[in-house]
Amino acid sequence: MPPLTDPPERLEVLAIAGLPEITAGTPLVQELCRAVSSAGLAFEDGDVLVLAQKIVSKAEGRLIELSGIEPSAFALSLAATLGKDARHIEVVLRESKRIVRMDAGLIVAETHHGLTCANAGVDTSNVPEGWVALLPADPDASARRLQEEISRCTGKQIALIISDTFGRPWREGLTNVAIGVAGFNPLLDYRGHEDGHGHSLSATVIAAADELAAAAEIVMGKLSHRPAAIIRHFPWRPAPGNATALIRARERDLFR
Amino acid sequence: MPPLTDPPERLEVLAIAGLPEITAGTPLVQELCRAVSSAGLAFEDGDVLVLAQKIVSKAEGRLIELSGIEPSAFALSLAATLGKDARHIEVVLRESKRIVRMDAGLIVAETHHGLTCANAGVDTSNVPEGWVALLPADPDASARRLQEEISRCTGKQIALIISDTFGRPWREGLTNVAIGVAGFNPLLDYRGHEDGHGHSLSATVIAAADELAAAAEIVMGKLSHRPAAIIRHFPWRPAPGNATALIRARERDLFR
Repeated sequence: MPPLTDPPERLEVLAIAGLPEITAGTPLVQELCRAVSSAGLAFEDGDVLVLAQKIVSKAEGRLIELSGIEPSAFALSLAATLGKDARHIEVVLRESKRIVRMDAGLIVAETHHGLTCANAGVDTSNVPEGWVALLPADPDASARRLQEEISRCTGKQIALIISDTFGRPWREGLTNVAIGVAGFNPLLDYRGHEDGHGHSLSATVIAAADELAAAAEIVMGKLSHRPAAIIRHFPWRPAPGNATALIRARERDLFR
Repeated sequence: MPPLTDPPERLEVLAIAGLPEITAGTPLVQELCRAVSSAGLAFEDGDVLVLAQKIVSKAEGRLIELSGIEPSAFALSLAATLGKDARHIEVVLRESKRIVRMDAGLIVAETHHGLTCANAGVDTSNVPEGWVALLPADPDASARRLQEEISRCTGKQIALIISDTFGRPWREGLTNVAIGVAGFNPLLDYRGHEDGHGHSLSATVIAAADELAAAAEIVMGKLSHRPAAIIRHFPWRPAPGNATALIRARERDLFR
């Protein structure tokens, strides 16, 4: 049972503004370093950098123009039912490993990565007209690559989260979660540790990376051109973590 | 369509340490004000105060001693299957309006408030041996009462969240969510607002109170006697919001 790090007394969440529109091939890390510096900030050892999925997808060229998509018969039929663009639905189906629910005008799908979310993560917000954005092909690999580049560029030891905005059952509203992680363990495991009454906690594993992604969303917003944030004072330990560890295995999941 | 407030450039999350063990009748607000002051902090207009459900439940006397519980036949049978204390299961059943899933040693229940969570929110962590803690009877009413008391005691305009740690389908790990809210709208509605490409967002409603609860959990932790946090610089507008608005109506929920 590894010792736990005490939580920080104080956490700071800083928006990174001033990034240009990101397109395929934009040197994202270079632009991030420039924007941080322009904002009078600097990366510090121990920072967690949170990047919106959309800018990572854009930099990686994961946008698809709908005019080039030929919808299948199933996509055409679904699109008619849902009142949506059949080419968009076709892309959703291509990004889906499995449809989890399809009702009330919604498609909840499991992506090829194993993420469960609306429309297999395919969406049109902050994307040019006539195009859709896909999730990165391998968000953990993207996170690792970006973390290494940032560390090289800044000389600082930082952790990295790629976040996306997902819905969830039972509750209204969306929250940001971590779909890619590099540099630390996204789960904080309290099992076996004792509380102040001498009870050993039996089930408490905190999805720290999801909570960090949620905290970052508050300063990023959706319309303010701030697709990145720095979280300062979170006491992560360097470890080969990844966001795949946040995906519940099918046999442990009562809701798939 | 009400205008949206810009997200803050910077968010601060401050742990409140130094609270005593809370028991039934502890003047929680008085102790919070004392602890904030002892920590060299002071409430400011616009702060969001996040309180762990456990201290609110304790102050309200929502702890039950298991020795006084007579388990039903169903509780006895379930307890044998799950390898748990039948009296604990009996309390879980009494707090449940409906069992959502019962499998893999887990009971996921809808509480009488409409919250869906493990064990109907009944738990033993940070509670004396032989007792279990229930959720507050009406977390929104508790939040309103506490918010009014804090405002009176400090003269500051603050918003209040009562948070608890819930699991969720599809993803490993728990995150904090808001089960009681007072003073602001817990949902941030972007629908109808245009992104930088002229798209009108169609589905984006952010569960801001859940993201704030998640951010607060990072500084609260589970074992550090910090059951409260202040979030500074979140631009809420005074409004008669409540956490019941975060509960998805059954007819809109594909997973109940």
